[in-house]
Amino acid sequence: MHEDIRHCSACGHAVEFRIPDGDHLPRHLCPACGHIQYRNPKVIVGVIPEASDGRVLMCRRNIEPRLGLWTFPAGFMEMGETSGQGAAREAMEEAQADVEVDALLMMINVPYVSQVYMIHRGRLRSDHHGPTLESSETRLLREDEIPWDEIAFPTIWHSLRRFFEDRRKGQYQIHALDLAFRAKPPQRPEVAGDDPGTL
Amino acid sequence: MHEDIRHCSACGHAVEFRIPDGDHLPRHLCPACGHIQYRNPKVIVGVIPEASDGRVLMCRRNIEPRLGLWTFPAGFMEMGETSGQGAAREAMEEAQADVEVDALLMMINVPYVSQVYMIHRGRLRSDHHGPTLESSETRLLREDEIPWDEIAFPTIWHSLRRFFEDRRKGQYQIHALDLAFRAKPPQRPEVAGDDPGTL
Repeated sequence: MHEDIRHCSACGHAVEFRIPDGDHLPRHLCPACGHIQYRNPKVIVGVIPEASDGRVLMCRRNIEPRLGLWTFPAGFMEMGETSGQGAAREAMEEAQADVEVDALLMMINVPYVSQVYMIHRGRLRSDHHGPTLESSETRLLREDEIPWDEIAFPTIWHSLRRFFEDRRKGQYQIHALDLAFRAKPPQRPEVAGDDPGTL
Repeated sequence: MHEDIRHCSACGHAVEFRIPDGDHLPRHLCPACGHIQYRNPKVIVGVIPEASDGRVLMCRRNIEPRLGLWTFPAGFMEMGETSGQGAAREAMEEAQADVEVDALLMMINVPYVSQVYMIHRGRLRSDHHGPTLESSETRLLREDEIPWDEIAFPTIWHSLRRFFEDRRKGQYQIHALDLAFRAKPPQRPEVAGDDPGTL
């Protein structure tokens, strides 16, 4: 049983953790009202915002986990939005940045935390950006200025690498990546799937 | 407040629906223990399984919604799996099919139901397939045999179209699509984003 699911969210009764009839995995099931409370993987949406001079907007995290490390704007997708809409929202919330979100760049499976990342490219509509509750500092950085050893998450690191590789080639595409296991920072994770080459 | 979230899943107390401090959207918040129960978009994973003769495996739905209409294997992503692992699991559960899942083909935002689809290509490891609790019938079909007017969901329809288009070209890539609004079957949805051309 998951520690946050002890009671039925519909009726408040104590739940059981067992395989419902016709299912194949144990679920949080209410013996009083029959409601099943599913747990599902979560989607993280993000954007790599590019300024007109080619620098990208990076944020220093002001919250846990990985407080003090660097990321581009990204966060949990909300109900009723597309990945692009969510990415634009995150850019405003985390960096006060007005971003025109472009095509998807990267789709990453992170099974060890039950997450899927959807990372877009994007362009800053204005030069304005700045700190927020979530970011202690925001900066426009060239590729050689990116603090590669102080990136908050492997997903962010891989997405940035792919972005700059594609930009050098002058040809963007959508990349897919499976991260095979949890890496302790600053180690790099092993990767599986279509992307074994960049580490 | 969402109808299935009236009580705190951690302590059972009645929840409030309001914007927590430091947040920007109303959440289901417990005034007794402080637990916040988030609602998040769900990921659907699926695979278009190809037989050695090029036919693809389709299933007639034996469950609601869209009972009696056709789909390839697809369903909710489970905790701890990648999209490819989930797609293989769905092929076995829905069609008794042993599928080697290949690269991602299609990523679809469906904001009106708060879902993200991740559809892979794949190959049947054996010719075996058959009905299950979820599928009243399973069939291997050529492109011209697909019941295009009896497809269960627009996401399935678009994924199949892209699969056959890519196969004709001899070049697969990852496609992204935003479905702009709910279509009543058998109408086709308007599309936004990078894929306005196929309707």
